[in-house]
Amino acid sequence: MGRERVVPVLALALCVVLALAALPLAQAYDGIVEKKVYEVPAYTTVGGKTIKNLRVGYETYGKLNAAGDNAVLICHYFSANSHAACRYPGDERRGYWDSIIGAGKPIDTDKYFVLSVDSLANVNTRDPHTITTGPASIDPDTGKPYGMRFPVVTIRDFVNVQKAVADALGVKRFHAVGGASMGALQAIEWSVAYPDLVGRVLAVIGVGLETSPYAIATMDLWSAPIRLDAKWNNGDYYGKDEPIDGLAAAVKMALLQSRSPAWAQKQFARKWAAQDKDPLASFDNQYAVQAWLDEQSRSRAKLYDANAWLYLAKAVQLWHAGQQPSPEAAVRRIKARTILIPVKSDVLTFPEFSRTALEQLMSQRRPVDFFEIDDDGGHVDGIASIGKAADTIRLFLED
Amino acid sequence: MGRERVVPVLALALCVVLALAALPLAQAYDGIVEKKVYEVPAYTTVGGKTIKNLRVGYETYGKLNAAGDNAVLICHYFSANSHAACRYPGDERRGYWDSIIGAGKPIDTDKYFVLSVDSLANVNTRDPHTITTGPASIDPDTGKPYGMRFPVVTIRDFVNVQKAVADALGVKRFHAVGGASMGALQAIEWSVAYPDLVGRVLAVIGVGLETSPYAIATMDLWSAPIRLDAKWNNGDYYGKDEPIDGLAAAVKMALLQSRSPAWAQKQFARKWAAQDKDPLASFDNQYAVQAWLDEQSRSRAKLYDANAWLYLAKAVQLWHAGQQPSPEAAVRRIKARTILIPVKSDVLTFPEFSRTALEQLMSQRRPVDFFEIDDDGGHVDGIASIGKAADTIRLFLED
Repeated sequence: MGRERVVPVLALALCVVLALAALPLAQAYDGIVEKKVYEVPAYTTVGGKTIKNLRVGYETYGKLNAAGDNAVLICHYFSANSHAACRYPGDERRGYWDSIIGAGKPIDTDKYFVLSVDSLANVNTRDPHTITTGPASIDPDTGKPYGMRFPVVTIRDFVNVQKAVADALGVKRFHAVGGASMGALQAIEWSVAYPDLVGRVLAVIGVGLETSPYAIATMDLWSAPIRLDAKWNNGDYYGKDEPIDGLAAAVKMALLQSRSPAWAQKQFARKWAAQDKDPLASFDNQYAVQAWLDEQSRSRAKLYDANAWLYLAKAVQLWHAGQQPSPEAAVRRIKARTILIPVKSDVLTFPEFSRTALEQLMSQRRPVDFFEIDDDGGHVDGIASIGKAADTIRLFLED
Repeated sequence: MGRERVVPVLALALCVVLALAALPLAQAYDGIVEKKVYEVPAYTTVGGKTIKNLRVGYETYGKLNAAGDNAVLICHYFSANSHAACRYPGDERRGYWDSIIGAGKPIDTDKYFVLSVDSLANVNTRDPHTITTGPASIDPDTGKPYGMRFPVVTIRDFVNVQKAVADALGVKRFHAVGGASMGALQAIEWSVAYPDLVGRVLAVIGVGLETSPYAIATMDLWSAPIRLDAKWNNGDYYGKDEPIDGLAAAVKMALLQSRSPAWAQKQFARKWAAQDKDPLASFDNQYAVQAWLDEQSRSRAKLYDANAWLYLAKAVQLWHAGQQPSPEAAVRRIKARTILIPVKSDVLTFPEFSRTALEQLMSQRRPVDFFEIDDDGGHVDGIASIGKAADTIRLFLED
């Protein structure tokens, strides 16, 4: 009897010790991250052009093990940067997937070394936490910003730069590569381009195994307003009045298409922007949803570079996994286990895109899981409601 | 035995006679239609402004009966005019719903007197078969085109002008009012505004009982490129270089959102616009879907007036059935039997919009039918695949 009671007490004590041991680590860890910089003297693009003095920012969370094989790469979406988790000193805002990346979270930084890298031609050129090389960068050959003379860059180029960063950090193999939206394109690209270096692919709100013609056309629509703005001036606007109106119109499209009819109904219904300004009375009088879109798109446009927006749209259009002649050929190269996570209400990267990829992977007996996030907010629920897939992601990574 | 053979022969002879009797009628009728003009010396808009010398075109198919109650009004969609059926002399192209309007067709011109009226602020100002009054018209008070000084017009204004035309023609009551897309808004508006004058409402690919905030925002996106074009000049471009680039960008959005991912995949897949022009090599090198959109949108933009496009977008935004305080209040006024016909793959006026209207009508025990066109081409299947709903429409009108 005496002995029987000792065991639970000892077990409890052990738990407390373990918990106390884990706690400071987790807290210290979750707290703060700093952006680092990686530089390449000369990088050759998929299109065969050279970018000199390439610089990109990156963030890491957790510790790389001795074998270099506990790494997880998180690739970011169109308008994001490498700030996937944690927070910067003096800034309360956390990275976009902080709900699933951290100590004890599904992408567990107590187990995994998580890496994220700012894309080439990242749009956030005025955000001090983004380090990128793109059309707004100075061309060392001319001393002037590249503008539209910057080389066309592709999803594979983003992957190749990530690979250079990973190599430099000592990563031998990725336990998993994941991402949302444009990040999902990169995750799949990794598994086709470097099949032996990727254990698992986590493709959230992606476009499947290639950008479909409908999505190619959507990227065309997203580009048109910038080109229409006279201030764009074929991309030579640096140091002058910038094409903010065109860029804001482009951002507005992305904002709306990333949301859903249900979201708009809940947020705004048919409310007017100002109670005394009936939209019937004048073209200047708006509905609340219009005013919100105007305000959001203008404030974001101030952080973005219009040319970079065009480069990212082009990169998405050009993407077909591994530059293979067909999705079938791409699938033949894949060795990773893949999970596809669309959002039910997504009207930008429709769930059908992921379903097509599911069929393509299954038809060649590749290991593939599928989890549809059942939420009504649209594309952004790949970020905002990723918690609904948390258990699934945890199991997928452990399995 | 001899007698048994006589019956089928007689029956066959009878059929031939009936067929011959029907044929000349049908052919004569289906053949030709001519646009007529209706004029109002002074029309007062819902917003309280006066439009002088208002002129709109209209078409009729079939004969009005003595009681004036066999009329069917067909209201047209955003980019259409009143050419719903038949063809003009010397022109082989038939009206957009010719497959369901005509002798012996579901909207049977042997039974019904079908009327269709060009909308106010119709976009097709350069089409000789469109007669409209809008921002491109000459303001009799100034002798100059209205531009953005033309009064804001609403779906109710379109309905009121249609009513004036119908009154002048001797129509006492509409057996049915129907339309696709913006035409469905007008059909429902009729049943709320003039409940005693409408027997049936045929609402194809509509937005339900009000334009949702998501659709309001979509109309905002469709307007933005025109305003971005410096040639728009706040609407004063008549007689000068017109804002064709902005208008074409707007039309491109409408073209794409009216179609579907499945359509784009079947039509274009990832084909290049030109075999020797790899999109990777240059921003100027396009995919086939981009080239198609450019060509289509430019050729349409040449027929359209940019300001009229803004006025129609505004009319759609302003619409909530009968200007009632809520959809529930609107439903309380409706006496017509309604059928809602969305398209399954529609990503512009989502089937959910019609489903919401179905629930709102059912909750107040209004007679309502629902038929979803199961096709994968998107919004335009409300025109292109309306044949799939032909039997349902025939029954609905006869019932």
